Amino acid sequence: MIHTPEFLINFIETELCGPVYKSLEAKPEELYEPIRYTIALGGKRMRPALVLMAAELFGADYLKAVSPALAIELFHNFSLVHDDVMDKAPLRRAQPSVYTKWNPDIALLSGDAMLVKSYELLMGIDDSYLRKVLEVFNKTALDVCEGQQWDMNFEQRNDVTVDEYIHMITLKTSALLAGSLKIGALMADAAEENLQLIYSFGRNMGIAFQLQDDILDVYGDRYKVGKQTGGDILANKKTFLLLKALELAKGDTLTRLNHWLSLTPKEADVQKQKILTVKEIYSTLNVKELAEKEMNLFYEAALGDLDKINVEESHKKYLKEFADQLMVREY
Amino acid sequence: MIHTPEFLINFIETELCGPVYKSLEAKPEELYEPIRYTIALGGKRMRPALVLMAAELFGADYLKAVSPALAIELFHNFSLVHDDVMDKAPLRRAQPSVYTKWNPDIALLSGDAMLVKSYELLMGIDDSYLRKVLEVFNKTALDVCEGQQWDMNFEQRNDVTVDEYIHMITLKTSALLAGSLKIGALMADAAEENLQLIYSFGRNMGIAFQLQDDILDVYGDRYKVGKQTGGDILANKKTFLLLKALELAKGDTLTRLNHWLSLTPKEADVQKQKILTVKEIYSTLNVKELAEKEMNLFYEAALGDLDKINVEESHKKYLKEFADQLMVREY
Repeated sequence: MIHTPEFLINFIETELCGPVYKSLEAKPEELYEPIRYTIALGGKRMRPALVLMAAELFGADYLKAVSPALAIELFHNFSLVHDDVMDKAPLRRAQPSVYTKWNPDIALLSGDAMLVKSYELLMGIDDSYLRKVLEVFNKTALDVCEGQQWDMNFEQRNDVTVDEYIHMITLKTSALLAGSLKIGALMADAAEENLQLIYSFGRNMGIAFQLQDDILDVYGDRYKVGKQTGGDILANKKTFLLLKALELAKGDTLTRLNHWLSLTPKEADVQKQKILTVKEIYSTLNVKELAEKEMNLFYEAALGDLDKINVEESHKKYLKEFADQLMVREY
Repeated sequence: MIHTPEFLINFIETELCGPVYKSLEAKPEELYEPIRYTIALGGKRMRPALVLMAAELFGADYLKAVSPALAIELFHNFSLVHDDVMDKAPLRRAQPSVYTKWNPDIALLSGDAMLVKSYELLMGIDDSYLRKVLEVFNKTALDVCEGQQWDMNFEQRNDVTVDEYIHMITLKTSALLAGSLKIGALMADAAEENLQLIYSFGRNMGIAFQLQDDILDVYGDRYKVGKQTGGDILANKKTFLLLKALELAKGDTLTRLNHWLSLTPKEADVQKQKILTVKEIYSTLNVKELAEKEMNLFYEAALGDLDKINVEESHKKYLKEFADQLMVREY
């Protein structure tokens, strides 16, 4: 029996806001309240849904994979809380980030506790799965840390290539999607070849997903995205769009782009002007279309992986639909 | 066969600076170099030694407990790296702390990676121990986070009691010593009653150890302690000494103490004056002696626990000596 993503997301939401939330009603308040706040902020619950969907893809009951699904979601939220400190992001899902609502120390420590809690949640699985699942979980967690560090390094460099960028987002974003799917598949005792395919599916889909994110940060609806659009442009963030633009721009266009990159305006109207000008340059260089093309390449590769997975075709239905929805999302 | 603490510490040091260090020669440099730096800073390696000593106490080969011992040491170092950010501590073991040598973001992220690495190291044990050891490890890690949060909360409060203080240090300091011992004992298949006794021994010893630390922060040799003495006084840190002083001080003495607590001097000479004056007040109130008395109570309780542990008496030799050494240490 295969469930819809909506059903599984709803199930995860109920678990998170029920038993998981309850287990976080502990003292000291200053440590646990930010964790509860973060969980209650919501989110797409995409990663835990992928854990459950992968379990069902390979014929297991989704209930078998609930613990790692919740662990993955808590881990993801931990990484957001710490990333917001490093990125000095005031908003998260259109609400104050933990570091803004409380302070950086609280974000640091409650984030640490969240990471430990994610390991605690993971323990809900049978002994026979513990080692294999933990190995993927640990590897994934390190990948995410490495990706975030590369991302921060790129801020200080002016020679980042598009290839390096893809490597970075593979670690920072894709690894967790791929790890989620692999853990779900492990809980369903999937064969080694299928484990590799589902991981590759997640990795390719993750890259496509991040490219979509980059596009939405510039071209999305700010209310739907849940944060200011143009934030990446203001921060000179080396996204696919900017790196491609720097690769393609020549003469006056390159001069204008570099001029605006040299400015970090604090005044709202100059910020607005920077966003408009950079978007205009992107438009001249067709950068949005190139990003969409790259995104589609990875998306197609993901579908190719899914195609090769050796299970009953009907089991792939919702995973394919889910991937499709990610590609047409507005936020 | 029972080994001396020196032998076990030396063994741990060799492992840390050999295979563990090697495994951290990875990219990005900015993530892994601070971890290697932290390991190379040294330290007493007390916690991993306790893991191995507890394993030997209950008749296991210490080699069986090496993975969790290294995991515990890495976890401890992780907590120091993050604590130094929160406490804005410029020095660690007489060297720049990670957050000073690099920056708070690097300390945050490399700390996260260290925490994950500690779980990875833990995986070196046999499947049959994985769940039990992880349960203690997770619980201990959360205790340490909670303790740090209580400690930070106390900075904002003026009504902290000595009892609350003891509760805080039980979580922040003792839990890890107690957890280390319990994990070592688990690796030796110790009986439930013995597990409880060794945990209680560690908890009591840990409280005594922290009280000793408080005393050394004021009365220790700054070169041996590896950091500025009087730091707790300057930071108005609610240690046993200060809380006891606030409890006992009356009239003029209390007024003078509160006056100095209201000041947070930036100038070196006024800082020196604050340290001298508060020490003088401590001296009037016999606070050092009271702290030593309290420390000895917990130390005696620890010895009582060790006494009750049902193993061959000769096995307790080094653990008792180790505890004795902690009590007469100068740093």
